[in-house]
Amino acid sequence: MDQMYSFVQMKLQNLATSDHASVVSMNLFVALLCACIVIGHLLEESRWMNESITALVIGVTTGVVILLISGGKSSHLLVFSEDLFFIYLLPPIIFNAGFQVKKKQFFRNFITIILFGAVGTLISWTIISFGAIQFFKNLDIGSLDIGDYLAIGTIFAATDSVCTLQVLNQDETPLLYSLVFGEGVVNDATSVVLFNAIQSFDLTHLNTSTAFHFLGNFFYLFLTSTLLGVLTGLLSAYIIKKLYFGRHSTDREVALMMLMAYLSYMLAELFYLSGILTVFFCGIVMSHYTWHNVTESSRVTTKHAFATLSFVAEIFIFLYVGMDALDIEKWQFVSDSPGTSVAVSSVLMVLVMVGRAAFVFPLSFLSNLAKKSQTEKISIQEQVVIWWSGLMRGAVSMALAYNQFTRSGHTQLRGNAIMITSTITVVLFSTVVFGLMTKPLIRILLPQPKHTTSATASDPNTPKSLTVSLLGSAQDSFDFGASDVPRPSSIRALLTTPTHTVHYYWRKFDNAVMRPMFGGRGFVPFVPGSPTERSIRE
Amino acid sequence: MDQMYSFVQMKLQNLATSDHASVVSMNLFVALLCACIVIGHLLEESRWMNESITALVIGVTTGVVILLISGGKSSHLLVFSEDLFFIYLLPPIIFNAGFQVKKKQFFRNFITIILFGAVGTLISWTIISFGAIQFFKNLDIGSLDIGDYLAIGTIFAATDSVCTLQVLNQDETPLLYSLVFGEGVVNDATSVVLFNAIQSFDLTHLNTSTAFHFLGNFFYLFLTSTLLGVLTGLLSAYIIKKLYFGRHSTDREVALMMLMAYLSYMLAELFYLSGILTVFFCGIVMSHYTWHNVTESSRVTTKHAFATLSFVAEIFIFLYVGMDALDIEKWQFVSDSPGTSVAVSSVLMVLVMVGRAAFVFPLSFLSNLAKKSQTEKISIQEQVVIWWSGLMRGAVSMALAYNQFTRSGHTQLRGNAIMITSTITVVLFSTVVFGLMTKPLIRILLPQPKHTTSATASDPNTPKSLTVSLLGSAQDSFDFGASDVPRPSSIRALLTTPTHTVHYYWRKFDNAVMRPMFGGRGFVPFVPGSPTERSIRE
Repeated sequence: MDQMYSFVQMKLQNLATSDHASVVSMNLFVALLCACIVIGHLLEESRWMNESITALVIGVTTGVVILLISGGKSSHLLVFSEDLFFIYLLPPIIFNAGFQVKKKQFFRNFITIILFGAVGTLISWTIISFGAIQFFKNLDIGSLDIGDYLAIGTIFAATDSVCTLQVLNQDETPLLYSLVFGEGVVNDATSVVLFNAIQSFDLTHLNTSTAFHFLGNFFYLFLTSTLLGVLTGLLSAYIIKKLYFGRHSTDREVALMMLMAYLSYMLAELFYLSGILTVFFCGIVMSHYTWHNVTESSRVTTKHAFATLSFVAEIFIFLYVGMDALDIEKWQFVSDSPGTSVAVSSVLMVLVMVGRAAFVFPLSFLSNLAKKSQTEKISIQEQVVIWWSGLMRGAVSMALAYNQFTRSGHTQLRGNAIMITSTITVVLFSTVVFGLMTKPLIRILLPQPKHTTSATASDPNTPKSLTVSLLGSAQDSFDFGASDVPRPSSIRALLTTPTHTVHYYWRKFDNAVMRPMFGGRGFVPFVPGSPTERSIRE
Repeated sequence: MDQMYSFVQMKLQNLATSDHASVVSMNLFVALLCACIVIGHLLEESRWMNESITALVIGVTTGVVILLISGGKSSHLLVFSEDLFFIYLLPPIIFNAGFQVKKKQFFRNFITIILFGAVGTLISWTIISFGAIQFFKNLDIGSLDIGDYLAIGTIFAATDSVCTLQVLNQDETPLLYSLVFGEGVVNDATSVVLFNAIQSFDLTHLNTSTAFHFLGNFFYLFLTSTLLGVLTGLLSAYIIKKLYFGRHSTDREVALMMLMAYLSYMLAELFYLSGILTVFFCGIVMSHYTWHNVTESSRVTTKHAFATLSFVAEIFIFLYVGMDALDIEKWQFVSDSPGTSVAVSSVLMVLVMVGRAAFVFPLSFLSNLAKKSQTEKISIQEQVVIWWSGLMRGAVSMALAYNQFTRSGHTQLRGNAIMITSTITVVLFSTVVFGLMTKPLIRILLPQPKHTTSATASDPNTPKSLTVSLLGSAQDSFDFGASDVPRPSSIRALLTTPTHTVHYYWRKFDNAVMRPMFGGRGFVPFVPGSPTERSIRE
């Protein structure tokens, strides 16, 4: 017994070594992830909560506990690392979004999405940057130069697409989902491009030529990133179609799809492009071609494995952000003047709201002008929901703020510390408050048939269209009229808007050129009762 | 055009920064992984090659190319990191092995496996350690103390279970597979326990009490590790059964299974147990209970996702080891006296062969004594295959060698450098030569019916029983006689050996106590044509 005791004591002493400390924190982190999943499941009946908020709350609670145990020294298990976020956590989330997105909806609203995501973000950025310059002058927050202000604009113009995914439902409000989420992806890309531009451009000599150079840079990045994603996706489809014809191996197919998707992201990073855009379009192409070239078990596996990876990465991020919220090093600077910090956070929050309002309503008006059919226009209620559900700020804002205002996670400047704490405040406040109120708001503004509402209440945990049966959601795209004889519904659709004409020609091109080369579903007739049938009803 | 050129030039300059260097190496690494999969697929018709050797060859080739490009400075993209190996790459491989292993075969041979894995490894370790002490005296290899020699014994007593998986086929030679692979897992655990014991015990005062303490420590570790794995597995089954009853969410189930499996490994590391044993038994319990509590799409997803993760981790390891083989820092020490290095490697290789022969044949004889039926005995041909296919040394040996003879990957001592290069030599030689010759050897020693042989030749790429159809292999355990009325075949089986009596009581206990609590398949009748049917034929 004594020997046992001394053994345990020896083990406990070993615990103090730094190598073992990381094992302890990993254990705690994995256990917390499990707890988030279980608690999130128990709370799924709730009308207000969602998984992000649960993870955020658990993260903050753990942070408080760690802070108390460590005697006020530290509150997190791991220091917020941009690398971890941008290299490991973000790619699976965005790829899965592209993989599961309803492509028909997405491309039908393509122009509106680009308008919101690119032009809208620029408007929002301008308002937040200049607003910050105006208001922060009167507040005593240390020295910030013009680059810092422009960076603040970018940081707070970045909508959190991860949080959006949790709040909106693809099956319930498909138009809103595709608009807000599509905007989020383009917006992320715009923010990253803007941010890199601000860090690399010489901002002391702003003139028209710089502006044009900047604009050219933006379009170049947008187009090349998209192209890279599409090419990688097509390459994966081609390789799997050529090599695996006749003899399939599920493991190899799944591994190859996963690795190629990740490769597209890393290639974009290699060429200083927007990895987010690349991996998103790679996901779209893979679900349109590659996914149909593999065995059925590979299809089920990829669909759910990608969704699971994305799900875990999301919870990881929110847990992480929650734990990092009590970053004691930065809060110490703020504790001298709590008023300043509150003022800065409030100003930023108001600027975010104004900045978003300044582009959602005008651009929706513009977009409505182009649409002939009344049902396709964005109603004023929908505009309010779009405005509201894009107000959340998340991990992208955190990562950009840490990049701009700290050196590998640490800072000694008061102004920088205040900006970090304000970012944390805005992220927590917007995620919790706006996140909690989005579902009720949608219920008030956009009343749904009774059964749909109850279906939503029981499935808020499956945001990425996982309510769809086994093989449903990745198959629904380009489905209507996939056979050569167009159905009545698709003929009617062809006559309404020019987008449908584009779609018609795309379909012809797809059937004639792309599918013979890259595979894909081809001319498969509808089997009644199969998951694809549901796309007819859309 | 000029602007474009200067732009490209600016990008190229940025490439030189260290942050971007890691992006470049990650790109190259992911691309190489893809290449390994594609080339491995193209070579799958080959009778000699397997995926490990392909990855190893590609790794060495890339190492040579990098060495030439960098002008002889460096040959790897990443320095071999034990953490990467033990924390991220090994767990999925061992977990998947437990998840996919044929449990009936494994438990039927349980005693033999333990005998081989624990007693056998100790015999092998003793012979290699004392052999090294004897032979290395005469070679000029710098100062090695008694701890170093005992460590050498452990390093080279560690069979590479990853490589074994690639070479033997679970469906073709089930007895050999379960023996060699089961031994590999227990052996890994024994090696790690031995290694930790050697590093922590005071070796200057070796006496009987130390030996008993050591033996007690070993049994304590073995039992607690197994228990921890079983408990974590049961906990996961219980949580999923309780919480998800009636309303399933595939993402959550898959995420929870993945995280709980990983948690079991990390918990074992936390308590200084053998993570390998823990995660292996966790995999067995999960496939027996948890797996049957989830939806069908979760089953397909977990089965293939775990196999894919394991597959990618395996290729990753071999690629990594291959690239690390040209570790220029260590080879420089050796280049002065190439003869010594060749001598050391040869001595080690011979010791490995003798050490393994010294336990395989005697222990097989012992095991045969306990068996009554002639068909269950291990024939002399099978003994030769067991001896041969366990001669490969792999990543575990590399990781232990780096741990013992370097400090975070570097060393300036000549003796240490020679030990690293000798380990690399033994690993490369044994994997390539023994790996290449195992398949032909099995074909010569154990002739199979013609059609089985041809089936093997076309599917060597699916080592982990993936040739079995969709849901086959994880379901086959405990299947015969799963209904309450024992079939004739199972009655006959009951009468043959005492192992079957243990199995009979276990089945009763499982049905009466475990299954009502933790789920599992229960009394499901056989559906003709379903994947479970195949287990009757076994």
